[in-house]
Amino acid sequence: MLIKVNRKELTKHISIVQKAISQRTTMQILEGIKISAKNNSLTLTATDTEISIKTELNAIVEREGDIVINSRLFGDIIRKLENDIININVENYMMNLKCGDSIFNLSTQKADEYPDLPKVEENISIDISAKDLKNIVKKTTFAVSNDESRIVFTGVLMDIKKSYINFVALDGFRMAIQRLEKETGIENSIIIPSRSLNELVKIIDDEEDLKLNISRNNIVFKFNNTVFYSTLLSGDFFSYSALLRDEHKISTSVSKREFQLAVERASLLAREDRANLIKLNVKENYIDIKSNSEIGDVFEKVKTSEHDESLDIAFNSRYILDGVKILESEEIVLNFTDSVNPLIITEAENDSYIYLVLPVRLAG
Amino acid sequence: MLIKVNRKELTKHISIVQKAISQRTTMQILEGIKISAKNNSLTLTATDTEISIKTELNAIVEREGDIVINSRLFGDIIRKLENDIININVENYMMNLKCGDSIFNLSTQKADEYPDLPKVEENISIDISAKDLKNIVKKTTFAVSNDESRIVFTGVLMDIKKSYINFVALDGFRMAIQRLEKETGIENSIIIPSRSLNELVKIIDDEEDLKLNISRNNIVFKFNNTVFYSTLLSGDFFSYSALLRDEHKISTSVSKREFQLAVERASLLAREDRANLIKLNVKENYIDIKSNSEIGDVFEKVKTSEHDESLDIAFNSRYILDGVKILESEEIVLNFTDSVNPLIITEAENDSYIYLVLPVRLAG
Repeated sequence: MLIKVNRKELTKHISIVQKAISQRTTMQILEGIKISAKNNSLTLTATDTEISIKTELNAIVEREGDIVINSRLFGDIIRKLENDIININVENYMMNLKCGDSIFNLSTQKADEYPDLPKVEENISIDISAKDLKNIVKKTTFAVSNDESRIVFTGVLMDIKKSYINFVALDGFRMAIQRLEKETGIENSIIIPSRSLNELVKIIDDEEDLKLNISRNNIVFKFNNTVFYSTLLSGDFFSYSALLRDEHKISTSVSKREFQLAVERASLLAREDRANLIKLNVKENYIDIKSNSEIGDVFEKVKTSEHDESLDIAFNSRYILDGVKILESEEIVLNFTDSVNPLIITEAENDSYIYLVLPVRLAG
Repeated sequence: MLIKVNRKELTKHISIVQKAISQRTTMQILEGIKISAKNNSLTLTATDTEISIKTELNAIVEREGDIVINSRLFGDIIRKLENDIININVENYMMNLKCGDSIFNLSTQKADEYPDLPKVEENISIDISAKDLKNIVKKTTFAVSNDESRIVFTGVLMDIKKSYINFVALDGFRMAIQRLEKETGIENSIIIPSRSLNELVKIIDDEEDLKLNISRNNIVFKFNNTVFYSTLLSGDFFSYSALLRDEHKISTSVSKREFQLAVERASLLAREDRANLIKLNVKENYIDIKSNSEIGDVFEKVKTSEHDESLDIAFNSRYILDGVKILESEEIVLNFTDSVNPLIITEAENDSYIYLVLPVRLAG
């Protein structure tokens, strides 16, 4: 391999593939980035076997070749160089790298020991904007379960319907559903590891459009010279639609900011010895929020729109706050049925997102 | 205690005294802030027995009193409140706090159980600007020892001479000396815990002037309604001036930025299996920097001013970088004697700071 490559471009593309490098791999070859030089183009590949990323950039390729080089060391070196052009020459698995007054000689590994990327038949193909994808990831992944023993719930369900897609995350205490209007013409559902989605959004620009391809075991996102692969989780998801309801006994709107701050303040006392327990007393035009602990108690009052009924209900404040914090509208709607059924929170002027929190049942 | 206090002012002053709250105290009373209300003024006090801070702010005091309240909880509550005015009423050690639609009832502790602040006789008094103090702390505290078994070297020596003060930090591998020109008229030396200095600079504004008072066991910094106390370390410091020299075999200037980046790049290979070992080959008008490890080797070349002699010398790059990074001049001066005596680094146009690094002796 004998190449000349622009330092800034190479730095950018190394940062992209490094999202697929695991810190905890036991296979030494997976600590490496595979570099393939061919036809005046460099292809960088990295994988942790769950996430795989391939990205291409232009380079002057005087002699083609493929090698694997330690990702962390190579990335750190390239980022610290100063001149615009990097000259790389690999002979007998030894890389000679020159840039300005810096010379590095680095040993590399054979590329043919590097694992193959997943083969993906393009049986389902969907276009999605980076903006929509980022919104979906922000509004769902926080609600997945951390319990590795129920692995499907560590992922986000992508429930594809003919004219929309529901993205659903839940952990047994709360559930988040983001709907995306999209004429897909098909029905299918897959479960994407939440970690894959969180890594993916780090490397897409806001203005990009992505193409999704789904096959039996993998999902692939293609954008801007880059291909991002993720394995899928297999298993049965929860039939989430049973939890949704259209009729609510109380449906009342509050200022998102006032409600969030009041719940945050009430949580300060409950955070340690009371498992974040807060009690809501929903009245005709306000909500009283109470909490207490050994050190004292707190009373908060939040104005709401008028409604007829009243209700006492208790929550783990953390689950309420997680969902309320990420909402973007000034007004949010709180939908209650009774003290044992979930609170359903929506944005006042946008029905595409639903956040549902189970109450805590109080003894007595 | 019955008071009205401005929320923003109270928030600011709580943040100041919280710098003296230890996360690891075993005495419950030290998790608290002492609040004394008297003569339309609130005094907040906190101490971890090494650092103590007292700060005053205006308040409307309708009934005087003193209590101790949990620092973390009280601070978090005050920061999360929204209205401008906070009403606090303490009766029978129970604090009732009202602000807007928020009501908190919090249990407090007796103030007479709170430890007294150090008594400081004002036998030595020195004025210093916040700007000078911040510079001193930035340029010395990073070089102190972390070894708690040699406690004096975890502090910064303040070596007071009649017309200047030397601030000195060292850990057996390198030494930093910042000189401050100051007509003190006295000679004395004390050792200030570096942690105290680092906490102090977090709470002083750039434009402030501070008054230092030194007594046998304590140093006190007074500024802007706040008094910051630190215990002193007792023991013999190293007679640092023996290490300084005026004559150098090689005295050569380099670009700070180029030298730093070259050493950083050379360190990338040496960081793991080679204890950051880099070798300098000082030539007549450049320095070659070399390093190697199992995975490869690196050669860097940095231009220097011309000089007659040449020299081979090796260093732990971390100790060079720690000192070079904080220098502010574009040109820095490297002063070498031989391969076993320290490298002395100074700024090209400012002789008030000296950074000294011991070389690594190579076998053979």
